[in-house]
This record gives sequence, C-alpha cells and structure tokens, in this order.
Amino acid sequence: MDRTARDRATPDWEQLAPVAGGGLLDRRAFLRGGAAVAAALTGYSRSATGAPLKDERWSLQAGGITPPYEQRSRFEDQVVRTLSNPNGEPRTQHARTPHHLLAGTITPNGLHFTINHGGVPDIDPDRHRLAIHGLVKRPLVFTLDALARYPMVSRMTFIECGGNSAPLFSPQPIQASVQALHGLASCAEWTGVPLATLLEETGIDAKASWLIAEGADAPALSRSVPLGKALDDAMVALYQNGERLMPGNGYPMRLLLPGWEGNMNVKFLRRLQLVDQPGMTYYESRTYAQLLPNGKAYRFYFLQEVKSFITHPSPGLALQGPGFYEISGVAYSGNGRISKVLLSADGGKTWAPAALQEPVLAKAFTRFRLPWRWDGGPAVLQSRAWDEAGNVQPTRAQFVAARGETKTPPPVLGFPNQHFNSITSWAIDGKGEVKHVYA
Amino acid sequence: MDRTARDRATPDWEQLAPVAGGGLLDRRAFLRGGAAVAAALTGYSRSATGAPLKDERWSLQAGGITPPYEQRSRFEDQVVRTLSNPNGEPRTQHARTPHHLLAGTITPNGLHFTINHGGVPDIDPDRHRLAIHGLVKRPLVFTLDALARYPMVSRMTFIECGGNSAPLFSPQPIQASVQALHGLASCAEWTGVPLATLLEETGIDAKASWLIAEGADAPALSRSVPLGKALDDAMVALYQNGERLMPGNGYPMRLLLPGWEGNMNVKFLRRLQLVDQPGMTYYESRTYAQLLPNGKAYRFYFLQEVKSFITHPSPGLALQGPGFYEISGVAYSGNGRISKVLLSADGGKTWAPAALQEPVLAKAFTRFRLPWRWDGGPAVLQSRAWDEAGNVQPTRAQFVAARGETKTPPPVLGFPNQHFNSITSWAIDGKGEVKHVYA
Repeated sequence: MDRTARDRATPDWEQLAPVAGGGLLDRRAFLRGGAAVAAALTGYSRSATGAPLKDERWSLQAGGITPPYEQRSRFEDQVVRTLSNPNGEPRTQHARTPHHLLAGTITPNGLHFTINHGGVPDIDPDRHRLAIHGLVKRPLVFTLDALARYPMVSRMTFIECGGNSAPLFSPQPIQASVQALHGLASCAEWTGVPLATLLEETGIDAKASWLIAEGADAPALSRSVPLGKALDDAMVALYQNGERLMPGNGYPMRLLLPGWEGNMNVKFLRRLQLVDQPGMTYYESRTYAQLLPNGKAYRFYFLQEVKSFITHPSPGLALQGPGFYEISGVAYSGNGRISKVLLSADGGKTWAPAALQEPVLAKAFTRFRLPWRWDGGPAVLQSRAWDEAGNVQPTRAQFVAARGETKTPPPVLGFPNQHFNSITSWAIDGKGEVKHVYA
Repeated sequence: MDRTARDRATPDWEQLAPVAGGGLLDRRAFLRGGAAVAAALTGYSRSATGAPLKDERWSLQAGGITPPYEQRSRFEDQVVRTLSNPNGEPRTQHARTPHHLLAGTITPNGLHFTINHGGVPDIDPDRHRLAIHGLVKRPLVFTLDALARYPMVSRMTFIECGGNSAPLFSPQPIQASVQALHGLASCAEWTGVPLATLLEETGIDAKASWLIAEGADAPALSRSVPLGKALDDAMVALYQNGERLMPGNGYPMRLLLPGWEGNMNVKFLRRLQLVDQPGMTYYESRTYAQLLPNGKAYRFYFLQEVKSFITHPSPGLALQGPGFYEISGVAYSGNGRISKVLLSADGGKTWAPAALQEPVLAKAFTRFRLPWRWDGGPAVLQSRAWDEAGNVQPTRAQFVAARGETKTPPPVLGFPNQHFNSITSWAIDGKGEVKHVYA
C-alpha cells in the first residue's frame, strides 16, 4: 500500500511500543516493518525517479592503478590510532583503536591496539629463534620454517591491556572518546601452533609448574604463565587476520593467551623457560599486582573479565536531530562467550536486551545492536554484559567499593588502575552531543 | 619418560597408523601425542639449555616509532597480489590473493582480490549517493550519513569471481601457483545495511521482480539481481574487516550477494533500479552466460558452487625433505556451510577426512587441515568438499563432461571458462617440488 507524504508525517515508528524507557525499541523491530521508521527521520533527499544523480569526476574518467598491496582511500586518513608517544621518546608507546569509527567484530590489522615499551623492533624473521628450555626433557630451538610444519589452529580472540579503561578509575568522569577510554582492546583472527604441541616436543619435567615468556625486543619483556594455561588454549601466533603479524603486534611471533591480560601475550616471542615458580618479573610484581582498598592484593590477576561499551553513539559522534538510531557496541569476556547484553537509555532505570551478532565466539568481540528512537531530550545510554560463566559487569558503585578509585585524574600506571570492567555511561544532551558521565 | 637421541631415531610417528594411502594421518593425531613426530624431522638445532641465542640488533637497541596506521614488516614485502595489468592500461585490472602465503580464514584487506574494469575510482564519500528507484513506491537517495543510522548486520563471506580457476579449463594442466589458479576468491567480514531494510523504505511495486545494480565507476558496471536474493541475504556493505571498504573493493559501498558470482556484487554502488525483467547487461548476456557442450546455455549462472583447494603445500612451496607436514587449504560453497572435506595423497585412490576449523560459517571460507607424513616419494594431493545442501565437488572428468574445456590455453574471457569448481591436484616429486597435474 502506497503512502502519501501526509501519511508519512505520522511514521510507523510511533506505533512501535518501546521495550524500555528512553525510546529503546525491540531488537526485532526491523524484522517487523520497523525499517520504514527511519525514512521519515534521516532527512535525505528524495527525487521523483532517482535519476538526477550528478555525474562526478570518478564516473566520467578511468580510475587509478590497482596496487599489489591495497591501501585505504585517502578519504579515510583520519581513521587512525591515537598515539601516547608520537615522537618515540624513550618510554612506552601506546596506540589506541578508534572503536567509534569501526564496525563489526574484527579490528583491521592497521588499527589493532599496540603497546610497546622499547619501540617497535625491526626483526628479520630468518634470524629470529624461539627457544623452549628450563624444566623440559629436550630443550629445543625453533626457526620460523620449523614452526611452519606443525599443525596449526585459528581462532578469533580479543586482546585487552590490563590498563584499558584506566581513566574510569577517576572519581570524576574524564571527557574523552571511546578510543581514549577503551582503545586498548582489539579483536583479530590469530593462526599459529598450539603451545601444547611444542611442549609435547620438548617434554615437560614433572617439577615444572610455570613458564617464563620473554620477548626479543630491547626491554626483553617477560611474564610468568601458569603451565595449565600453556597446555589449555595458548598459541604461538604467527598470523593476524590471515597475514603475518604486524610489527607492533609481535612480528614474527607472539604468545597468545586467549582472555588473559594483554601484557602476558608476550610479543616478539623468543624464549619460554619452564620453571617451578613464577619469575616475579617487573610487570607481574609491580605494574599488574592489583592492590585493593581492603589492604589485600591480587598478586596474579590474569583474567580480563566480562565487559562491554557502546561505540555508536559515543563522544564525538553527535546525534543529528531526533529520530531513529541504532545503538551498537562490543562485549567480551575472558571467561568465554557473551550470553546477554542489556541496554538502558535512561541511566539504568530500565533495560532491554540487545541483539547479539552471530557467531558469538568465546573470548572474542561480540557486536551488540538495538534500535533506538531519540526524542530529542536528555538520555543516558549504558550497556551491561553477562558471560556464559554467569559473570556480570558490575555497576560503578559495586566496582569502586571492591576496587577503589584514583585520587588524581588522569591516572597513570600504578594503584589501582588495572582491570576496570564496570558499566560506561554516555549522556546525550538536547543538542545531541555525547558526554562521558557516571550514572 | 625421557628419550635419548637413539630413541628418537625411531620416532613415534612410525607407530601412527595412516588413515589413507600416501601417509595421511588421522586428523586427531596431534591430540594423541603425535606432535613428538615433527621434532625428529624438521631439522632445527637443539641446544643444551636453550641459552645460546644470539642477541641481534633488535634486542640491543630501542625499536622504531609506532605509526597511527600500522603497516607490515618490510620483510613481508613479497606477500602481494599479482597484477594482470600493472601499468593500468585501458582494460581490466585483476589482483589475485596469495593463498599460499596466508593462513586462517580471513583475507586481510590489503590482499583481498579485486577486478576493476575501468581502474580504481577515487570516490569522495561525502558526494557519493545511492539511489533506489524504478518499480518502487518512494524513490529515495541515500547519503552515507543516512545509511549510518540504519540497523546493520555483519557476516563473514567469501566473494569469488565467476572466472576464478579458469586456467583449469585448459586440456593440459597449466603450471602456475595457487595464487594464479585460484586467487580470484577471498573472504572477509562485511558490515552494512540489509538491502531488505532499504527496500522496505522505498516500498516495492507488485510488478517488480528484478533489480539492476549499477556502479559509480566509469564503466558503470551493471548487473541484474532477482528480487528474491535482494530480500534474502543481500547487503549494502560499508565495512570490510571492521574498517571502510578498500578502494578496489567498492569504497564507499558495494552490493554484497553472499555466495553469488563476484561480478554481481556491484562495487561503488550508485543505483538500484527495480524492474520487471533482467537488463541483459554486458556481463550477464555476454561474459557470464554459460554455454554448455550440449548446446544449451545457463543464461543466469549466479551461484558459486562448492569448491576447495590445497594451499599448503602448493606450487612454489617445495617440501624440505621427507617427514611430517600439515596439509591445509580452504573450502567454501555458495549454498551454505561446508559439511566435509576429504583429502587424498595418492591421486584419489583413498581419502581421509580433514579437520575443519571452527566456526564453520555459511558461505565463508572454511580452513581444513590434516597431518601428513611424506615418505619422500611421488604423491598426488587432492581435496574434495561437500556442502550442507549435499553438493559435492565434481572430479575433473565429471566436470569436463558436463561443462567442456577450452582448446587454446591459457583461456581468456569467453566460452566456456566460468564457474570452474572441480578438484585440483598437486603432484609432489622426489625432490619435494609441487606441480599442477590432472589426476
């Protein structure tokens, strides 16, 4: 049935009952004709025939030459990682993923977050070696060619820095983008050799209970890993989204510990020493030993717990007038699969379940989405995730009670700014601007 | 139990029963201690402690500066697409994916295959428009900003040119790499707006049964698509592996028709005209109308049928001496999920099931793998795939009987070199060199 322009002044979406406060619509709204909603709202021009399209230059003359390795359009140059140390001064370099400019679940290799403490090494793969030694039966040294002959596995998994989201420990909400706040987490398909296979090669001495992984970069970054994790789902990763690892992500090989603290996924992997106790290396004894408000400490806090955040809308992505939008973001858990994500548009008073993009994979980003009708008034958007192990993202009040907050924003490395995983809140004002708030 | 060097002269793999001729081992061999096999064979050096690793330059001095958008290591410069027209002469440009140098299931954006008939256009996304018109109730023009407000979906899917593997129509096996033979197929995660949603916006006239999709590139490439497919799983794709489409893949938007002939997935999508009959455009009436040996023709041959090929080993990846290897490759079907891949190492006399990497997704690459013990003698490796709809890759004899072969290799565009999907055979000689053969 055709509708006149007058009909469209009363768009279909007025008839869609919200499923929670603030205009959240049912996640299946668009399978029921809800799509007709957006037409009345998005303000794009109509034409009688669709014909009056302007012929631009690119439709009138031949295009450019196909390159051997394709690069992005020059119009995407602003889609970049933000750098904490762009001049390469002798300290840590962080590069954060621009979640608000991406979609789907895969982080493209150019935009995967990286943290390097001694710059990005320029490693010749033909000269790189991986040694496995210590409490083994046959210490062995592996070349890249040797590793290529072993059985491989592929898996999608996120990696997240233990310090991701650290600005949210501040007692006041820091005004920054989702990239600045949560940009130290990314997700890719990794392919490599299960570490368990290589440990079958070397054999394991009965006294071994940990291994110390060490990188070939100048700081020789090292972390201790319980043998159980090494024999479970650990991998010596050689490929990232189908091609060799990016230099900042550990080229030519890294340790992959799905769901565990990013820093432990040792890059430029050079040495695995099996030992009978942890090494108490710099990063595990100083940086990532988690002091708690109750005076106790988590000495080894390996797991990245269940978490989610909204990427669309988010600070810097202002709404263009009232009407229909899709709320979208990512959820993940080091425990396994995401089982549920609830969204709120009224600061947590009411909640509605988001659609989860299939396939929902263990220890990988899950994209969630929900239709939303913004009425033009103030709103506070929140997401809250559950994982299949029954864990739930804490509220900020619960989180601060258990874990504390910093006194001097913005926090830097140190107590207690690791492993933040509580709810993030975005406030929309009457102009459609998005701000970070605590709610 | 420790083993001496003497013990290792009788490696464990001698005790592993093959599951098919030519040395194919059970796909679960490595879960049963089979891994100890490879140690005896791969020839890497051993050291008493693992300690004598040479400290290379990159371990002794700070590395480089982290870039905003990461690029590959300079040591990977040889991993590129091969170009049919590197100087951009006024004809089609093909860029083929180097399957033998990749792993996993995702094709990284820099290496996704592309074919462009008028060069790669340099499109300003702010000026690009998508018009939907013809037999609709409300013709509409969409900007990129308008599309950004619609509900999106993500899915992994392969795209394959109808002409992929065309050299295998030759009556004699052409000596070329897997990249040259099968490099016009790739797989990525695509995110965009379901076409069905946009057609709900425009409404559909009851007389409409097809739509004609047209690109904004200079040739205005156009193809006819049955309305049923448009309403099924078609997408206006905006993102490729998380970031905006690559220029050669249709930036800023393309039509995605999962499982259907690559040429129909119209890039630089500018216009969708709903019509009551197909347009008989150049590509559907000339190039992709499939003439058959029996004098009949498939006028519309849209589906990319079930197919597989071995990427490791393959021509150019010579074996380095007898012993253990992993055979690996990709399988896919436009009908849905891959249900089974069988491998043969004796030219098809005996077969064994390969392991399929989870998750096995509909209309996406599935990576298959199987352990193999090469005895140093001649071998012929083959893979054969089945899909969940019950389709099976034909043998070459079956395929040629039904579809014919060319008379003058190497074939170019024209009869009958489209939609090749029969078995590919790699022969290993006594030196470990790999050749393309018919078997």
